Amino acid sequence: MKEEKVFKDPVHKYIYVQDATIWDLINTREFQRLRRIRQLGTSYLTFHGAEHSRFSHSLGVYEVTRKIISQFERNHYEDWPKEERLLCLCAALLHDLGHGPFSHSIEKAFGTRHEDWSCRIVLGDTEVNKVLSRISPDFPKKVAGVICKSYSEEIVVSLVSSQLDADRMDYLLRDAYFTGVNYGTFDLERILRVIRPYKGHIVVKDSGMHAVEDYLMSRYQMYWQVYFHPVTRSAEILLHKIFQRAKHLYEDNYTFGFMVEPILHLIQNRLSLEDYLLLDESVMQTMLTFWIMEQDPVLVDLCKRFLDRRLFKYSTFEEGNKRLIQRMEQAMQENGLDPSYYMEIDFPSDLSYDVYRPGESDEKLPILLLDHKDNLTEITHKSEIVRSISGIHMGKHHIYYPEELLEGLNTTTYLDLWTLLGKQE
Amino acid sequence: MKEEKVFKDPVHKYIYVQDATIWDLINTREFQRLRRIRQLGTSYLTFHGAEHSRFSHSLGVYEVTRKIISQFERNHYEDWPKEERLLCLCAALLHDLGHGPFSHSIEKAFGTRHEDWSCRIVLGDTEVNKVLSRISPDFPKKVAGVICKSYSEEIVVSLVSSQLDADRMDYLLRDAYFTGVNYGTFDLERILRVIRPYKGHIVVKDSGMHAVEDYLMSRYQMYWQVYFHPVTRSAEILLHKIFQRAKHLYEDNYTFGFMVEPILHLIQNRLSLEDYLLLDESVMQTMLTFWIMEQDPVLVDLCKRFLDRRLFKYSTFEEGNKRLIQRMEQAMQENGLDPSYYMEIDFPSDLSYDVYRPGESDEKLPILLLDHKDNLTEITHKSEIVRSISGIHMGKHHIYYPEELLEGLNTTTYLDLWTLLGKQE
Amino acid sequence: MKEEKVFKDPVHKYIYVQDATIWDLINTREFQRLRRIRQLGTSYLTFHGAEHSRFSHSLGVYEVTRKIISQFERNHYEDWPKEERLLCLCAALLHDLGHGPFSHSIEKAFGTRHEDWSCRIVLGDTEVNKVLSRISPDFPKKVAGVICKSYSEEIVVSLVSSQLDADRMDYLLRDAYFTGVNYGTFDLERILRVIRPYKGHIVVKDSGMHAVEDYLMSRYQMYWQVYFHPVTRSAEILLHKIFQRAKHLYEDNYTFGFMVEPILHLIQNRLSLEDYLLLDESVMQTMLTFWIMEQDPVLVDLCKRFLDRRLFKYSTFEEGNKRLIQRMEQAMQENGLDPSYYMEIDFPSDLSYDVYRPGESDEKLPILLLDHKDNLTEITHKSEIVRSISGIHMGKHHIYYPEELLEGLNTTTYLDLWTLLGKQE
Amino acid sequence: MKEEKVFKDPVHKYIYVQDATIWDLINTREFQRLRRIRQLGTSYLTFHGAEHSRFSHSLGVYEVTRKIISQFERNHYEDWPKEERLLCLCAALLHDLGHGPFSHSIEKAFGTRHEDWSCRIVLGDTEVNKVLSRISPDFPKKVAGVICKSYSEEIVVSLVSSQLDADRMDYLLRDAYFTGVNYGTFDLERILRVIRPYKGHIVVKDSGMHAVEDYLMSRYQMYWQVYFHPVTRSAEILLHKIFQRAKHLYEDNYTFGFMVEPILHLIQNRLSLEDYLLLDESVMQTMLTFWIMEQDPVLVDLCKRFLDRRLFKYSTFEEGNKRLIQRMEQAMQENGLDPSYYMEIDFPSDLSYDVYRPGESDEKLPILLLDHKDNLTEITHKSEIVRSISGIHMGKHHIYYPEELLEGLNTTTYLDLWTLLGKQE
Repeated sequence: MKEEKVFKDPVHKYIYVQDATIWDLINTREFQRLRRIRQLGTSYLTFHGAEHSRFSHSLGVYEVTRKIISQFERNHYEDWPKEERLLCLCAALLHDLGHGPFSHSIEKAFGTRHEDWSCRIVLGDTEVNKVLSRISPDFPKKVAGVICKSYSEEIVVSLVSSQLDADRMDYLLRDAYFTGVNYGTFDLERILRVIRPYKGHIVVKDSGMHAVEDYLMSRYQMYWQVYFHPVTRSAEILLHKIFQRAKHLYEDNYTFGFMVEPILHLIQNRLSLEDYLLLDESVMQTMLTFWIMEQDPVLVDLCKRFLDRRLFKYSTFEEGNKRLIQRMEQAMQENGLDPSYYMEIDFPSDLSYDVYRPGESDEKLPILLLDHKDNLTEITHKSEIVRSISGIHMGKHHIYYPEELLEGLNTTTYLDLWTLLGKQE
Repeated sequence: MKEEKVFKDPVHKYIYVQDATIWDLINTREFQRLRRIRQLGTSYLTFHGAEHSRFSHSLGVYEVTRKIISQFERNHYEDWPKEERLLCLCAALLHDLGHGPFSHSIEKAFGTRHEDWSCRIVLGDTEVNKVLSRISPDFPKKVAGVICKSYSEEIVVSLVSSQLDADRMDYLLRDAYFTGVNYGTFDLERILRVIRPYKGHIVVKDSGMHAVEDYLMSRYQMYWQVYFHPVTRSAEILLHKIFQRAKHLYEDNYTFGFMVEPILHLIQNRLSLEDYLLLDESVMQTMLTFWIMEQDPVLVDLCKRFLDRRLFKYSTFEEGNKRLIQRMEQAMQENGLDPSYYMEIDFPSDLSYDVYRPGESDEKLPILLLDHKDNLTEITHKSEIVRSISGIHMGKHHIYYPEELLEGLNTTTYLDLWTLLGKQE
Repeated sequence: MKEEKVFKDPVHKYIYVQDATIWDLINTREFQRLRRIRQLGTSYLTFHGAEHSRFSHSLGVYEVTRKIISQFERNHYEDWPKEERLLCLCAALLHDLGHGPFSHSIEKAFGTRHEDWSCRIVLGDTEVNKVLSRISPDFPKKVAGVICKSYSEEIVVSLVSSQLDADRMDYLLRDAYFTGVNYGTFDLERILRVIRPYKGHIVVKDSGMHAVEDYLMSRYQMYWQVYFHPVTRSAEILLHKIFQRAKHLYEDNYTFGFMVEPILHLIQNRLSLEDYLLLDESVMQTMLTFWIMEQDPVLVDLCKRFLDRRLFKYSTFEEGNKRLIQRMEQAMQENGLDPSYYMEIDFPSDLSYDVYRPGESDEKLPILLLDHKDNLTEITHKSEIVRSISGIHMGKHHIYYPEELLEGLNTTTYLDLWTLLGKQE
Repeated sequence: MKEEKVFKDPVHKYIYVQDATIWDLINTREFQRLRRIRQLGTSYLTFHGAEHSRFSHSLGVYEVTRKIISQFERNHYEDWPKEERLLCLCAALLHDLGHGPFSHSIEKAFGTRHEDWSCRIVLGDTEVNKVLSRISPDFPKKVAGVICKSYSEEIVVSLVSSQLDADRMDYLLRDAYFTGVNYGTFDLERILRVIRPYKGHIVVKDSGMHAVEDYLMSRYQMYWQVYFHPVTRSAEILLHKIFQRAKHLYEDNYTFGFMVEPILHLIQNRLSLEDYLLLDESVMQTMLTFWIMEQDPVLVDLCKRFLDRRLFKYSTFEEGNKRLIQRMEQAMQENGLDPSYYMEIDFPSDLSYDVYRPGESDEKLPILLLDHKDNLTEITHKSEIVRSISGIHMGKHHIYYPEELLEGLNTTTYLDLWTLLGKQE
């Protein structure tokens, strides 16, 4: 490129584009589509600032990767495979390309996986594929390999996807910025200064252990304060129920007053690539907007609830508390509500986020500390803090239900349920 | 309210809700709808962080108003009419309630005005109206009066709508935060400290003049760097053309493959209140998404351009340069393009923003300085800086057109047009 | 006071003074003296931004206390003893009044304690005492009582001095701001929202546990990254050695070329209150400046080292490694250096800072969580994070010595010492 | 250098040292001395956060220069003389080396100039000179040439000293950060992106004009809000009076109870280089501390006033108001005060700061805009904002005097003076 181009970015100040390939990828229709998908799904209903898109996050992951590589090059680290630079940058930029609208709810309802779609877009007949193919015919395959973690060079994969990757470094900072919480603000520049390539891994100088502890604490706090927030979960559950209901109605031969092809194909489980590219959060939300005029009262009510933000309430649920479930179902029936659409028991670990747990069957590469005698040690062996975070399973089961439910009950049932839900009198 | 409630906000840290009325207004469907309308319309195509909604801005205006009033009350200023507190807060919260999707383009294309819609929503059969009516039967009318600047107490109106109002104080800070530019970051706390009620006006202690200068400079910079950005304008023009084309097709009896009632009624110029409430940016964007499968090539092309962000380019246009217009039109015809959809000449002052110009037919109340002898002076008489900003008409005319146009031309026309557009060889 | 006054403050934006007593206390000579004593002693030699004074910190502690009380009053908490407001504010403002120059080094060398001096100033014939006495004759005694933790109302003491006090809340934020590290930036507003008075204690709503975890992690990080930094320790050790040497010379009847009375009296251990008030960091530094012209080569060398920042180096020291000490002493003797002035073995826990360890003989009041059934629980019983921090004794022993020492040695001794110090070849 | 070294810096996050020469210069005693001289002199008495030293500012100027050069090199600008890199960096680091304590007051009282001292230190028998001479024998001379603006390459001089130089870019940001005002926070990264070397000048791409306007507005605001603050001036006047008095006493053969050689030589106007290096703000302040025990009541009173911050008050003074001066002098005589030590009439433009005034006899190089046709235009011809700032002479004359003066007067004189000072009754 004749001259570097920049994007103004609130998190990194500027995002620098120095390769024509990157510039062209950003300008494809598939990448521009990410502007219409929020980074944090339903979180904007809990934190009103969280309206940022996967487009801005993807640029951010690219920029963090660019900074890391630029530091590796400036220091002439021998273990850094220079020829992989462009591959890393492309994979970083495109790793979230396959995300659909409200992924958590949709993926759960229909069994799709965004990683698969990322690869389908990269490998399919798309503008992105055309740009990548200009580098070399097998370049799209390589990019897909990095995204799906099957690429042979661990060091390339780990830049984009490991316990200390560019993806997480950007999203913690970005999500903290847009929600307005200040938990995610670890010292990115310090982390960049202490990581380096070493024998095929990205490792951390052991003098940088405190910086990594700080980063992991940020992550821990963000998970409990933002990502696992029960109000956000409540909105996700509602969406899930809406699509569960729509599917049920479709299978029951209900005729929708309003329907568009990509949604129909989603319900029929025969989404084409072209369908998928049309599916964004605008289409989803428009669906809900016009479904409030459908004939099915359950669908109508759930859609209204989502649009007007009258979410289900939640209470802590002691595992195995069958009596509460029974009473709740009974109360629902008294009110003419179907528990399969109006009640949910949920445990945060079902979510696709995770705290740092190197011991578990975690596919993410662990964090290795490099000491001055060139020994590598996994961080939990050196840091009591990280050990304590790793061991924490503090998620609580929650039961979700419509608040008005309690109001309509007769006094005895009400008091009984009230007590079972652990509320004070 | 038993206990104050808070919203986490990136700009003000927290937004404090202390009145049940405010809480209930926020929870109405009409107010929740603002979550689906971006604060800065098409600016997110220039500044990718600018994805924040009118919902968050409206909460912000409320919060700034709350802070101002709280400072007035803490200082026991005699000229502050305490009984107007709740009215001010409600009007601040609701002043943007009538904004539709991409207001700048839509209002221009169809002649609607968001202020009118704000009042229709406040006065109509809506949840908002119900909440307000609980205060007193004429309370909705009062709120509408403040929003439309017809309320009798100038001091109440000026909190929400003047040259130094809560609306602007929030949007400058908020838009700067989300775009990532740092021009809008004036010292809000200092401004709050120097304003006070005085004989029916909100005035500024003259020792605070520099703080006001700083605020006005922020505003000036934001207008030229963000609000009037030609790329944002280009996207607005595209939207405007799309709706112009759709209207033309409708009048031409074209049958749309995809159409929803609120859009149809918009085109037919017979929008009901209920239609209007369904019209949000999701619906708009979904419209464009499915119009790319229409039969009309102009509509299809314009919609694709918007969704994939292939915007028109722009060049500075010397007023009265008829030859350039002729050549451009000629070049369009050579390429089979209709200039009424592919060319636009634009001047920023057409926009609904303004810099501070107290002398002009500006309906906004001017900024008055109060000296220690209780004299009031309009600020341009004391500040050379403000005087210089007020006098600036630096907007340039721009001509917008598709870039590929130039590429398809024969060499002579190309070079001629190239030169007329002021480009270098 | 007719009108509230403000100080511009980088950490809290503004500091609000609303009581004439506070205003008058700030203007006393004893309080103004705090401008000449750095908040972080020798840390500015490690973090060049850490040049802020105890004056600014003291204002900050006052402001945090004011905010807490204002929140208590706004919420009309019954358990808050309103009549103690001014006492709290005065004690908060004055709690560090007795700090001398480079307290850590001086207190260790001469056995003084700043808490005692704070009380002596409050109770002695001073301007501060005069201002306080205007409230009531026993008011100075009350203030001294709060500072020395002997005051009967625990809740008053705990605002200024507990595990979650205004002192710490200000210094973590302030020291992070001035050093430029971002470890100390916990969410003060959130902490303020979750604390409340309850049966004579300041407690934390248990829904605020994560906020407290975040605050404690900030503290933990600040201790290891800033307060215990070995370079800062090295400078403190140097100062300590200088005063140890000066004391030795005095006892040895050496005649100083440059000496001022307060320093002489310090060495003679007969400091009067008036002497103490003259002792600030300027006087200390001036002392070192002119002692470089003394006759004693040890004193001269140590002073030059401090002024020109040629500090001792450090290496990790395995406890009980007698051989290293022997070799080091031997090497010193070979070079004509006296180990009692040129070598120090140091362990951070000697310092007067501490991490949160509720189990230990910590005089600071612990952090109590209040659940919705009004039970109080000490935080380590609920938070695994806090438990892990509390249990950490990660300080390492360090040995400090002049770097040039190693350079002047013969090869065998050099290699031996090199290996003992754990350096790589 | 084997590996780059960093300093943690609150303004630039990190300061990167990549050359052994820079590292060694920082470690000289002459450069370390800058730690003992405040960047903003007496401003800490107005803004308590302004306690930062010239040491941190000097590192900052170095860092901004390093960033500019690194951008020039990255873009391979032909007009950039690469071989001047180290010279620029050294001059940037050392340009303030000759600043003494409270320069404004001392230079005025004794006629010294810090630029001259910078050159004397660079060229004299100093550690700095030794480090520079290692590059080449004439390197110290070159560095001195850049500092004193006599070096032949304008482009080198203008990086360190022009209307848009690294010096100003650092101090505006730094002084804003430490005082806590937010006027000085222009967008440094944007400025760096729009400047470039062009035919021996540093110029600005004309598309960056708004960024430069913003920078100049920051400067304008900082001058009026911070640098020209009358309370800061009041403290400077007090210091000036103290040294004027001390000089008078010396000439009058008074015997000082406390005196050190460098101060004596300063008064005798025969400062050696070695004396000068001993003169720092600690020595100055210690002087005042012990002069409060002198025999001369004027000296004692003035010193106490400074240390205890009982500064002179100020009122606006209409030029030529002789009656006020007469009355003031008369009032002083009634109270036994000598007006030459207790009264001062002051006009800000006497200060060594300046706003942007390209037309005046300003030795600083102006700001040139480069358009796309390679024309250079001085910025005031294009920017109405800059033109308006440049034309402003808004400084007011102030009269300074001790507040208590008014209190001791008889009623008639009091009322008369009160009125003349423009106070309200």
